Amino acid sequence: MSVHVLFPATIQADFAPGEVALIGAGPGDPGLLTLRAWALLRQADVLVHDRLVSPEIIDMVPAQCQRIYVGKSCRHHVLTQEQINELLADLAAKGLRVARLKGGDPFVFGRGGEELDYLLKQGVPCQIVPGITAASGCLAYAGIPLTHRGIAQSCRFITGHFQKDAVLDLPWNSLATESQTLVFYMGLGALPVISRELIAAGLSPNTPAALIGQGAGPNQRICRSVLRDLPTCAEHEGFVPPTLIVIGEVVGLFADCEVQYPGQVVAPLCDKEVSWA
Amino acid sequence: MSVHVLFPATIQADFAPGEVALIGAGPGDPGLLTLRAWALLRQADVLVHDRLVSPEIIDMVPAQCQRIYVGKSCRHHVLTQEQINELLADLAAKGLRVARLKGGDPFVFGRGGEELDYLLKQGVPCQIVPGITAASGCLAYAGIPLTHRGIAQSCRFITGHFQKDAVLDLPWNSLATESQTLVFYMGLGALPVISRELIAAGLSPNTPAALIGQGAGPNQRICRSVLRDLPTCAEHEGFVPPTLIVIGEVVGLFADCEVQYPGQVVAPLCDKEVSWA
Repeated sequence: MSVHVLFPATIQADFAPGEVALIGAGPGDPGLLTLRAWALLRQADVLVHDRLVSPEIIDMVPAQCQRIYVGKSCRHHVLTQEQINELLADLAAKGLRVARLKGGDPFVFGRGGEELDYLLKQGVPCQIVPGITAASGCLAYAGIPLTHRGIAQSCRFITGHFQKDAVLDLPWNSLATESQTLVFYMGLGALPVISRELIAAGLSPNTPAALIGQGAGPNQRICRSVLRDLPTCAEHEGFVPPTLIVIGEVVGLFADCEVQYPGQVVAPLCDKEVSWA
Repeated sequence: MSVHVLFPATIQADFAPGEVALIGAGPGDPGLLTLRAWALLRQADVLVHDRLVSPEIIDMVPAQCQRIYVGKSCRHHVLTQEQINELLADLAAKGLRVARLKGGDPFVFGRGGEELDYLLKQGVPCQIVPGITAASGCLAYAGIPLTHRGIAQSCRFITGHFQKDAVLDLPWNSLATESQTLVFYMGLGALPVISRELIAAGLSPNTPAALIGQGAGPNQRICRSVLRDLPTCAEHEGFVPPTLIVIGEVVGLFADCEVQYPGQVVAPLCDKEVSWA
């Protein structure tokens, strides 16, 4: 492939001064950025970004665009959510084109709705650019379909983040249903609780399950196991956030294949016939 | 914005002769295509595409790429799934770069897993390119967050497609849970069943609910109502497939805002201050 790929001329993305664009960056691979997101990022005067956005994407943005890091990890916030809201409104009030870039999708555990609500109430015009959410991107790069006919007729994304006092108040009976794929975001700390409660609610301890760390990126790690053994797996293999937890029969579907970054599936059968340049 | 946007030089996407790329096109807006998808489409020798892929995307692909339409609507298949599988393998066996393009995400009700399984067993090398799934794209373009702190701590995508003999065998008790957002794909025909069964299983008839037709495109239509009245709404407003069904408190969040294609949120508060060029 030539390095200079032409961007499709028909893609339009207007970005007005004083506007905030809530943009999803997708997970890992910068190639998962959408055309619309990229067209906006090229016009941005200031980029306000999270910890989960790939460094490659930050580097791709034109040099004259100011970068502001507001990332947060589990118990350490650079800025509070309220401070981020105010910062976005202040930058927009200066007449800047503000790109608010989040890993994954801003509307899937990304607090995009909270920022949108605040900004609209301040009279700040906004636009929303959905991104590939972690469940979709990381499972694809792990070779695990989210749904599969006859095996999973629904998929469900759940926040596994502890509420106050280390409580995880989830509808366990509803979650412990066959024929669905469960994907927990931010659930690594609560994994022992998740495994125990799902089994107590009736899900088989032998349900296929996996951990995906640093998903959809070149350093993606996958551990396939079963629901009962997943906490042990996480501990032994030293998984750290961000790690996605996947539970359901789909995990077993292409278990003998390997997916090489970015997204090439290597099956035992076709190993000898293909050269992976 | 200038028409000639530079594609980021660091985005690499290798496409080998004889390889099949299972690519998600996202819904509606061609700007929701990913950079990786576009880089592959530009190299494709043949494009095998579905009914749900935007015509704009088909037009964007270089003219020398052969196009094969294998779309299907509810009861009318141009090709059966088995014939599509064989076609993909045959084209790859000729040494062509085969782009298999699907609306949304190939792994979310897209039969991507079935095609991947068949192709790998035939020894055909594959790569997977996730796309923005309809739930994520259409809800963003309707101003409805999939999750929202304190309102929806999970979201769930379900196929509402009738199984044989017009049966819809779903775990209604599990679905009728508070604090989650339900999104039914292909559920318009079964909407009276979905509404009735969810209410019978305990979900409030007054749960906010919406229909999104021709989602994430310039002709997107939204009808906001409540669970009980949604079937009537669908009939009166003449919704036709593809229509997405959204059920949950998030539907009420930005109900007084309008989202103008592509993705600009117009709130009552900021109406007078902004000119939407």
